[in-house]
Amino acid sequence: MSMHSGTAPRLTPKGMATRRRIVEGAAEEIRERGAAGTTLDDIRARTGTSKSQIFHYFPGGKEELLLAVAAREAERVLEDQEPHLGDLTTWAAWQAWRDAVVRRYEQQGVNCPLGVLITELGRTTPAAQALTGQLIGQWQSALRTGIRHMQDSGEVDRGLDADRTAAALVAAVQGGVTILMSTGTIGHLEAALDTTLTLLRTGGVPAARPGPLHP
Amino acid sequence: MSMHSGTAPRLTPKGMATRRRIVEGAAEEIRERGAAGTTLDDIRARTGTSKSQIFHYFPGGKEELLLAVAAREAERVLEDQEPHLGDLTTWAAWQAWRDAVVRRYEQQGVNCPLGVLITELGRTTPAAQALTGQLIGQWQSALRTGIRHMQDSGEVDRGLDADRTAAALVAAVQGGVTILMSTGTIGHLEAALDTTLTLLRTGGVPAARPGPLHP
Repeated sequence: MSMHSGTAPRLTPKGMATRRRIVEGAAEEIRERGAAGTTLDDIRARTGTSKSQIFHYFPGGKEELLLAVAAREAERVLEDQEPHLGDLTTWAAWQAWRDAVVRRYEQQGVNCPLGVLITELGRTTPAAQALTGQLIGQWQSALRTGIRHMQDSGEVDRGLDADRTAAALVAAVQGGVTILMSTGTIGHLEAALDTTLTLLRTGGVPAARPGPLHP
Repeated sequence: MSMHSGTAPRLTPKGMATRRRIVEGAAEEIRERGAAGTTLDDIRARTGTSKSQIFHYFPGGKEELLLAVAAREAERVLEDQEPHLGDLTTWAAWQAWRDAVVRRYEQQGVNCPLGVLITELGRTTPAAQALTGQLIGQWQSALRTGIRHMQDSGEVDRGLDADRTAAALVAAVQGGVTILMSTGTIGHLEAALDTTLTLLRTGGVPAARPGPLHP
């Protein structure tokens, strides 16, 4: 799960720890104040670092630091789904994952720390798109691994397209969370997750009724 | 499909036509320039109306006009899915609807006119939440009607929860579009739609394998 911006200088272990401390402190500050309202001075004060230290680790200034914080928030999206996401080998594990996802976003409510940062960086900038693309790719990959495991153990129909179903699950979460953030209600997230998981359980093989959806 | 902000004065047919013209002109202007970059003078010039006319129809000024434009863009989201969305009575109609949705968002790409307006109005403001909630409600209702029709004609399993499946479909589209807007690729929208539609076709009744997902 490496999601660094890649522009930082090569660091000693101590340097890496300092950089990490700056990123974590900045993440907390931004969660409290918003990305636009947070200055480098706020982050300096919170993390007990000097201006020259911050520019040593983030030569690109605030934008580079925001990108590093966004990468950290993206890591958290996946971490918060562990240990379930990395071990989707039984139906109980899938159910525990589903519950963890619903709980996480229920607690988060209408504010998405990663979304705030992506908006501030500019959703369509190459850096933001790369970060989002990487998060979606890692997430989908973990779900695909889980689906394939269930196929190998005979719990899921081998005819199911594991990668597409994993993509559908990521989209289901994303859609449910977007609606939660817009309306404050969790029902769509649950409906979308449960519907897609039901397909996983039932295999999604049309019951002897071929038609336009599966030509 | 009435999505007016409800704050406009009672209007004559001619007044309604003028108001409509202002909203349509403002919508075009905002699609070109963005919501933040559009002034009331821009809209006045484009629609050939006076300042006093604009304030007659939108006493609340720019914010009220933006809300009316957002309501219009929300109407368009549904209109663009017609005639399919209102007549989901055969599998061919469902497939045509699916294709129309994918085509619409493929053309729209990374820019969502409604999203721009909701962001400008403030996503968590009561007015924006009411508008989004109403759009989602109407959309889900149309899909639910279609699912129930298919259940009545015996094409969809009657054990399927029509409202939850409709909610999952709305979330699938929303999630696919959000990922499209973040990454520029359409695959997740297609995967999410097709997966949920497959469940509709197969009925989603677990094949004699009860477990934690359906206790």
